[in-house]
Amino acid sequence: MNIKGRVEKLRQLMKESQMDAYIIPSFDAHQSEYVAEHWKSRQWISGFTGSAGTVVITLEDAGLWTDGRYYIQAEKQLAGSGIRLFKMVDPGGPFYSEWLADVLNEGSVVGFDGNVFSTSLVRRMEKDLQAKDIQLKMDRDLINVLWEERPEIPKEPLFTHDVKFAGKSRVEKLNEVREEMKDKGANYYILTSLDDIAWLLNIRGVDVPNSPVVIANVIVAEHTCYLFIDACKVPASVKLELEAEGIELKANDEIQAFLEKLSSEDAVMLDANKLNIRLYNAINSHTKKVESPDITTNLKAIKNEVEIENMRWCQINDSVAMVKFIKWLKNAVNNEEITEIMAEEKLESFRKALEGYMGTSFDTIAGYGEHAAMMHYKANEETQFTLKNEGLFLIDSGGQYYDGTTDITRTIVLGKLTEEQKRDYTLVLKGFIALSAVKYLHGSTGANLDILARQPIWQHGIDYKCGTGHGVGFFLNVHEGPQSIRSNNHVPLEKGMILTNEPGIYLEGKYGIRIENLMIVAEDEKTEFGQFMNFETITYCPIDLAGIDVEMLTNSEKQWLNNYHQDVYTKLAPYLNEEERGWLMEETKEI
Amino acid sequence: MNIKGRVEKLRQLMKESQMDAYIIPSFDAHQSEYVAEHWKSRQWISGFTGSAGTVVITLEDAGLWTDGRYYIQAEKQLAGSGIRLFKMVDPGGPFYSEWLADVLNEGSVVGFDGNVFSTSLVRRMEKDLQAKDIQLKMDRDLINVLWEERPEIPKEPLFTHDVKFAGKSRVEKLNEVREEMKDKGANYYILTSLDDIAWLLNIRGVDVPNSPVVIANVIVAEHTCYLFIDACKVPASVKLELEAEGIELKANDEIQAFLEKLSSEDAVMLDANKLNIRLYNAINSHTKKVESPDITTNLKAIKNEVEIENMRWCQINDSVAMVKFIKWLKNAVNNEEITEIMAEEKLESFRKALEGYMGTSFDTIAGYGEHAAMMHYKANEETQFTLKNEGLFLIDSGGQYYDGTTDITRTIVLGKLTEEQKRDYTLVLKGFIALSAVKYLHGSTGANLDILARQPIWQHGIDYKCGTGHGVGFFLNVHEGPQSIRSNNHVPLEKGMILTNEPGIYLEGKYGIRIENLMIVAEDEKTEFGQFMNFETITYCPIDLAGIDVEMLTNSEKQWLNNYHQDVYTKLAPYLNEEERGWLMEETKEI
Repeated sequence: MNIKGRVEKLRQLMKESQMDAYIIPSFDAHQSEYVAEHWKSRQWISGFTGSAGTVVITLEDAGLWTDGRYYIQAEKQLAGSGIRLFKMVDPGGPFYSEWLADVLNEGSVVGFDGNVFSTSLVRRMEKDLQAKDIQLKMDRDLINVLWEERPEIPKEPLFTHDVKFAGKSRVEKLNEVREEMKDKGANYYILTSLDDIAWLLNIRGVDVPNSPVVIANVIVAEHTCYLFIDACKVPASVKLELEAEGIELKANDEIQAFLEKLSSEDAVMLDANKLNIRLYNAINSHTKKVESPDITTNLKAIKNEVEIENMRWCQINDSVAMVKFIKWLKNAVNNEEITEIMAEEKLESFRKALEGYMGTSFDTIAGYGEHAAMMHYKANEETQFTLKNEGLFLIDSGGQYYDGTTDITRTIVLGKLTEEQKRDYTLVLKGFIALSAVKYLHGSTGANLDILARQPIWQHGIDYKCGTGHGVGFFLNVHEGPQSIRSNNHVPLEKGMILTNEPGIYLEGKYGIRIENLMIVAEDEKTEFGQFMNFETITYCPIDLAGIDVEMLTNSEKQWLNNYHQDVYTKLAPYLNEEERGWLMEETKEI
Repeated sequence: MNIKGRVEKLRQLMKESQMDAYIIPSFDAHQSEYVAEHWKSRQWISGFTGSAGTVVITLEDAGLWTDGRYYIQAEKQLAGSGIRLFKMVDPGGPFYSEWLADVLNEGSVVGFDGNVFSTSLVRRMEKDLQAKDIQLKMDRDLINVLWEERPEIPKEPLFTHDVKFAGKSRVEKLNEVREEMKDKGANYYILTSLDDIAWLLNIRGVDVPNSPVVIANVIVAEHTCYLFIDACKVPASVKLELEAEGIELKANDEIQAFLEKLSSEDAVMLDANKLNIRLYNAINSHTKKVESPDITTNLKAIKNEVEIENMRWCQINDSVAMVKFIKWLKNAVNNEEITEIMAEEKLESFRKALEGYMGTSFDTIAGYGEHAAMMHYKANEETQFTLKNEGLFLIDSGGQYYDGTTDITRTIVLGKLTEEQKRDYTLVLKGFIALSAVKYLHGSTGANLDILARQPIWQHGIDYKCGTGHGVGFFLNVHEGPQSIRSNNHVPLEKGMILTNEPGIYLEGKYGIRIENLMIVAEDEKTEFGQFMNFETITYCPIDLAGIDVEMLTNSEKQWLNNYHQDVYTKLAPYLNEEERGWLMEETKEI
């Protein structure tokens, strides 16, 4: 059955169910970015494989709402499906519930599976739809009826994450959470976000691609922490370890009953942006609800010293694979036939040789030429390019390790470049350096800093339609909040937070350029004017000198790059053989 | 009676009135920044003359809350008064009602004059004080009882502002307001902000120093606009003109009764940040209240083309006075005894010679040496310095003209500088140029742009404790919202908005440096990536080359400065005599 056929089947079912529209988002029941195959309903109904996007089907029309990273990809993948692309502009832009309020008749019914919608999103939709008295029907997963070979929810066992990596025991973490519960006057706290649960309990798993999380839910009470999880996922030894630390295991489906049985004396804390509407509605209506962003989100964003030490080493380790890969590629492209997927697999083979490697932290983006203009491109056998010894090859990849998570992009010069390519490569580098080298007052936010990376690019009338940087987890999600570097993120950057720095230029049908490092928020000097902060760059991999128009760099930019390259050499040399060191010496030479 | 005596008298009266604390803010009944002498209660009770600051007196303690512009000045002026300085940090910082919640006993009473407190401020105080059950008593102006020679509320006549300057008739403006009232479902709109009223009705006055506004209140209804004002302020011809355009005059004190008589069918729109709590409480409790920022604030922030043309000319006109002044000063300081006040008066004399000059737009800041470290310094006969032919003299001033409002700062090199002074002068200039030359995507805010001006200064561990730029009115308030360039202003910059660009360095006990121009938000190119914006600088006055360490400037910074100086010469030369032109040629020479 092709996409058109699936949409038609869905429309029949919608009619039978008295629904005028049906919404399929990209989330699982935990609002995860990366989801197990079981939850890829949106991909099944539309063919669009991006990590973010929502499909809305009405009886006459169909649309996909996605963001700037995926415009080019979505247009290609939706071709012929009858589903139109709606570009979600950052910030704002017409949202799908606004669109529904516009196209549906008074008193229509909009359906969706409440398990995969956050409470706050449903509230927002209710607000948009109330003027036309449009009803929401959130108790049916219609895709489940249609999707015959739907994969099961994963049942893999979890494992623990040793405190020598995590730096803090689960008891300490639970105590911190309980302190904040007390401050907010709550005796229960529902936590359903998978990376928050993994962090809190120092557990990891293999349920979801790219993110080492475990499918579960948690309710923290004053003395006990309840872990709702499929029993088959918890090895006996881990069960004993957890129980010894006050964590009681319950079956996953017991959580609804648990929430219904809370009393009017209880106060339950929850994050409406994370908790799905089915669980929210399960809470006893007499129980007081204390809404607040997840306590754990802020706690885990600020890495402790053990995590930071591990992360520093983890990046060096990962960078060794990148350096070996770039050396191999620059040589191989002149001698063999290399495709995008072959390059991706080669890099993966270098990473697999590293100690502690557990898999990718996101789907590798390996794009040659115009493919790299798709920010989140994924190569496939049918349409991939063979690399030539000219132009630019962008590779954005990362790994999961016991001692950290990595995320790095390099745009590699494979041969001759046009003047425009060289100019754009240098503009991206200028923005990248401006952000790397910034010194800022404590209290500054991503919204304050974002422009530093964009200014050189904007001067040429170009922009990249995504944030400049995102938070990164510690052997957890590669995209982690609450901090980020984008024009609308107002979270102050605190010592110990980790962020990417990844400006870029993406010219549709031509090429894509991105340079990306990881940085730790660090303290700089404290003066009479306040505490100053800076970024400690922890990714060590050469930036291709062949892409740079040196004339366009200021002296201080050249100095930053030379210092960085010197560090790259010093940090990586011990892990390279003589030939590799010689190559790296040349790649990091002074300009 | 000295300050200590006044505070003691107030404490006696507080005891008699069963109050445990009394709050005296710097506002009038319209939340104005600059207020008529009648409203300067906070200055009377404390001796502190800054434009912003609130005094809180308890039976045992007393404090002044003010912001970074006034720390140094406040410390000097409060010395010996028994009133302590509380620094209000931007953003947040412990607010005085939080402090009161801390120091007062359960069930205490806090008094203030409700006329001079905005509705939203009272709500905030109520929130802070409710936990301790502290009551607010807002019906008594105790200062009025004590202040024997209190000046009267001004009774000067108003005048109209011709549409050839304003660009839009009051009928057009009222129609725009009514459209938005309709959108928001309101049939009445209370407007009490004085500059908004002056803008809406194209009237001006001399009631308040620096701001050409008229003390009045307005209620816009569907067909009539009610102007509540002392009859003696409206000349007969103006009354006829207003009435012919649907504006009905009423006595100022009729507004309370008017609000009480609204019905349950009515919906009244108001800005809780502007409307004082006495008027808010006067609104019939059955009337629906629609809260929203003042409609007029956004409308008047975006200058129309006639206003912009006038503003452009007005700045050139005003710059002529500045150039003549700087030429005079640089010569005179070597030949005569010049004090800060003499310099200020000399500049005023040059402005008075200009066509259309109506007075200052704020109190001139003319500070030599360490005096300039006080951002909002005001020279007085007792403590002013005599200028020497060395170091830096900062002069920040502006004028009101029929065709606009000006605000300009230059820091003038009077002779030898230290290396530190030259470095800091150049750092300020670098930040100033970065903001002047920025090209940004439409949708960007002051919070996004602010860092460009601070980055060179932050690199040296220095910060200025104020915003980088503020909106400017058109023959109205020199500080005008909603836009500004500061780390927490999230209003997108729109074509036609006017802002200052004024980074600085202020070293207590040493010196102060600030460079300030006015800029118009303008459209740059529109590309596939969006509409780009830039700033059109409209102030034309040389930046002292003697302060610059040329080695510290990049080529593009030098180029910006050379281009700017060429423009300064070209724009001003026609209005200067030959000698002045020769001098200006030298001051604007290429570096």
